[in-house]
Amino acid sequence: MSKALPKRSENYSEWYNELVKRADLAEHSAVKGCMVIKPYGFAIWEKMQRALDDMFKATGHQNAYFPLFVPKSFLEKEEEHAEGFAKECAVVTHYRLKANPDGKGLIVDPDAKLEEELIVRPTSEAVIWNTYKGWIQSWRDLPLLINQWANVVRWEMRTRIFLRTAEFLWQEGHTAHATSEEAIEETEKMLGVYATFAEEWMAMPVLKGVKTPSERFAGAVDTYCIEALMQDGKALQSGTSHFLGQNFAKSFDVKFVNKENQTEFPWATSWGVSTRLMGALIMAHSDDNGLVLPPRLAPIQVVIVPIYRNEEDLAKISERANPIIEKLKSLGVSVKYDFDDKFKPGYKFAEYELRGVPVRLAIGMRDLENGTVEVARRDTLSKETLALDGIEDKIVALLDEIQTNIYQKALKFREENTFRVDTWEEFQEQIEKGGFILAHWNGTDDTEEKIKAETKATIRCIPIGAAEESGTCVYSGEPSQKRVVFARSY
Amino acid sequence: MSKALPKRSENYSEWYNELVKRADLAEHSAVKGCMVIKPYGFAIWEKMQRALDDMFKATGHQNAYFPLFVPKSFLEKEEEHAEGFAKECAVVTHYRLKANPDGKGLIVDPDAKLEEELIVRPTSEAVIWNTYKGWIQSWRDLPLLINQWANVVRWEMRTRIFLRTAEFLWQEGHTAHATSEEAIEETEKMLGVYATFAEEWMAMPVLKGVKTPSERFAGAVDTYCIEALMQDGKALQSGTSHFLGQNFAKSFDVKFVNKENQTEFPWATSWGVSTRLMGALIMAHSDDNGLVLPPRLAPIQVVIVPIYRNEEDLAKISERANPIIEKLKSLGVSVKYDFDDKFKPGYKFAEYELRGVPVRLAIGMRDLENGTVEVARRDTLSKETLALDGIEDKIVALLDEIQTNIYQKALKFREENTFRVDTWEEFQEQIEKGGFILAHWNGTDDTEEKIKAETKATIRCIPIGAAEESGTCVYSGEPSQKRVVFARSY
Repeated sequence: MSKALPKRSENYSEWYNELVKRADLAEHSAVKGCMVIKPYGFAIWEKMQRALDDMFKATGHQNAYFPLFVPKSFLEKEEEHAEGFAKECAVVTHYRLKANPDGKGLIVDPDAKLEEELIVRPTSEAVIWNTYKGWIQSWRDLPLLINQWANVVRWEMRTRIFLRTAEFLWQEGHTAHATSEEAIEETEKMLGVYATFAEEWMAMPVLKGVKTPSERFAGAVDTYCIEALMQDGKALQSGTSHFLGQNFAKSFDVKFVNKENQTEFPWATSWGVSTRLMGALIMAHSDDNGLVLPPRLAPIQVVIVPIYRNEEDLAKISERANPIIEKLKSLGVSVKYDFDDKFKPGYKFAEYELRGVPVRLAIGMRDLENGTVEVARRDTLSKETLALDGIEDKIVALLDEIQTNIYQKALKFREENTFRVDTWEEFQEQIEKGGFILAHWNGTDDTEEKIKAETKATIRCIPIGAAEESGTCVYSGEPSQKRVVFARSY
Repeated sequence: MSKALPKRSENYSEWYNELVKRADLAEHSAVKGCMVIKPYGFAIWEKMQRALDDMFKATGHQNAYFPLFVPKSFLEKEEEHAEGFAKECAVVTHYRLKANPDGKGLIVDPDAKLEEELIVRPTSEAVIWNTYKGWIQSWRDLPLLINQWANVVRWEMRTRIFLRTAEFLWQEGHTAHATSEEAIEETEKMLGVYATFAEEWMAMPVLKGVKTPSERFAGAVDTYCIEALMQDGKALQSGTSHFLGQNFAKSFDVKFVNKENQTEFPWATSWGVSTRLMGALIMAHSDDNGLVLPPRLAPIQVVIVPIYRNEEDLAKISERANPIIEKLKSLGVSVKYDFDDKFKPGYKFAEYELRGVPVRLAIGMRDLENGTVEVARRDTLSKETLALDGIEDKIVALLDEIQTNIYQKALKFREENTFRVDTWEEFQEQIEKGGFILAHWNGTDDTEEKIKAETKATIRCIPIGAAEESGTCVYSGEPSQKRVVFARSY
């Protein structure tokens, strides 16, 4: 059996890194800052993709694909956008290698220098809005509702698998609308889609809010976000949806003729979630034994382990297990029957725990005699012995129960770790302990910056729909009408 | 109504370009050599992806994701591989831009030069085999059966949408095996998967064969391929599967301990198909009216167009059409009900023809009275009037019939355009007319090269399973035991 994981309580960061590695989710590649997503990790990402893609299509969006490269001059067009991304751009300058005239190997061919440098997309607003110029002429072309699944590159010096990597996978929605109202509605709708996905699929409660100006996406008028609380008390931004106003339309000279025959600039949104969600999923639920996966995203929902001494026993167990497997599959449950004899049952149990398989069934010879099966839940680590007859429906119900339980547990954790704080002393004390802090803020960049410098806490969001409440800024003592959410974050 | 397409018989190339544009499949982007895949085109690609992905998983493969960037030193490790791709590499040399000190805009920051240049992957053997070093130690780790869906970049000077672009989308399988036999079996199995996909989904007959040494993938021991014949008599290589021997294992020092406790190098394969298949699909079946899509890959399989004068008529038609639509959907048919009143039925008919929708139903008021519907087939352009009652099952059967008919038509075309040629005069004459030429070849690179120089014909493949047949090389007159397939190609 493999060595135990580090404990969350002792070294959360080490626990995360080891878990990612041991559960075979991903690894650092030899290419600096880039990760390799391993098959088991990728299978979870595929489930996320499928669910999100279905939700995007159900809300009227279509997928398309735009170039990997952004010419430097495109990126420059929207000034804030350019400034925001300039420092983390991978730049293609040449298009050919040649044999090294001085010996072995290849060198960059100096004769193959590009006239204009190409940036590996850090995001695609520039290249997409340059394309939309050809797609949008009339109000009839609007709304334009497009999504892209792609890889993007943002050069990061300090990387962490899934949470911050130079290359990551994501989807980016880019829409164009005839009116500001409609674009804002879209921005909020997609934030809602992300929140629903986080809660119903990832079993992860999220706060919906708006970013302060200093935390906005470069080029956006408003950035909406969902924020989740990890088990170490840090916040993780899990998705953003931007109202871009007419900024990109103006920068790329995209216009349309409205129903009144007047020329206008369309209104834009963009929104994205990435493989960062994998990090969120891992950190939200997992424990010191390994991954805890919500059943809706688990590549293997149920594993069946036969306990046998010889081929004859195995044949008898399989005879009883096979119809159960077939029935479960027909009910849409993904099942693995692990009769591999290279490993002992105890080893297998630990491995499936490590990998977060929600339900484990063990069937031995005595079970066959008694018509029973041992059912183990990954979320509670509890076991019970149930009748084999009719087990399939019980498992389907159990998977639902586990999905709900994981969500409720995370919700309870968040509730217990959300604090209303009214004094600066209390703020400083609480931020060391972690959690979401609801506090008043005077609304200035200056205060936000000072709080960050002194405590490493940032405003995660101004919550949507929070009640108006008179109070005084926790830092400046100035009046405030609303609490905002502070936390340290990933 | 939009202008008619150019005719295939007059300008095939112009016909293709216009069709890609008018059917809203894709367009050239402002980024040199890169394309934008538009939503309708992407929807077809998604159907291809889903079908292929299911087939890969059914044959035991798992998806994973590897970095976009290949360090130059990795690419250099397998010499032939390096040589083959050096001339078409996009090279990242810097990781940051900065404000232009001389004025507006951004410049590449000279202080942010990479120590080692990164190549945007033209293919991933190098980065994947470097990773496999950590994944393969024992025979228990084999076979390793991995696939990746990704974008790749090969710098092309003369590009053509879908057929040859600097960036394209593809999948690349990379497997490792304990024995040469098993790796060759895998190479052939995946070629078979591609052939099945081409024939059963794309309705496109393909020849299966092996490439001559001069046409092998850089770094492969053997390259297998599927070749299809386009309507202009040119061949299109539609997929390749490579047996890589131990070349990459040796270059990246990947070893395993076999069952006899000896250290060995594993055997490798790689195989890929790309968005080039979109070009193949378009060129194999479409006609002067537009796209012809096989139903299994059509994003919209059936369009229903109501013919009405006023809202009242429309309501009556919809009342009859809605249950048909529901029934069709429940049978797994994708249906669009186009009651848009911005366009006249004639315009709509032409548009859906252009977009290759396999079946069109038109329902007018007289049809309602008579209980009939006009059913138009895209493949034959024929129409018939059928009873509305029970139309759903007829449509399902019709879609199957169209799928088969499109395949049969393409197969007939290929058969009529495949020629056995025995003299050089005949060869020269026939190659001008197009088609596959089955001819004897003496097996030398030299002859192959001369034939290419004189006629632009290449050996598309040495067909698998072709009968031995004594003859003389069509060019050199030397003895030969087998015919190979020549053609001009894309």
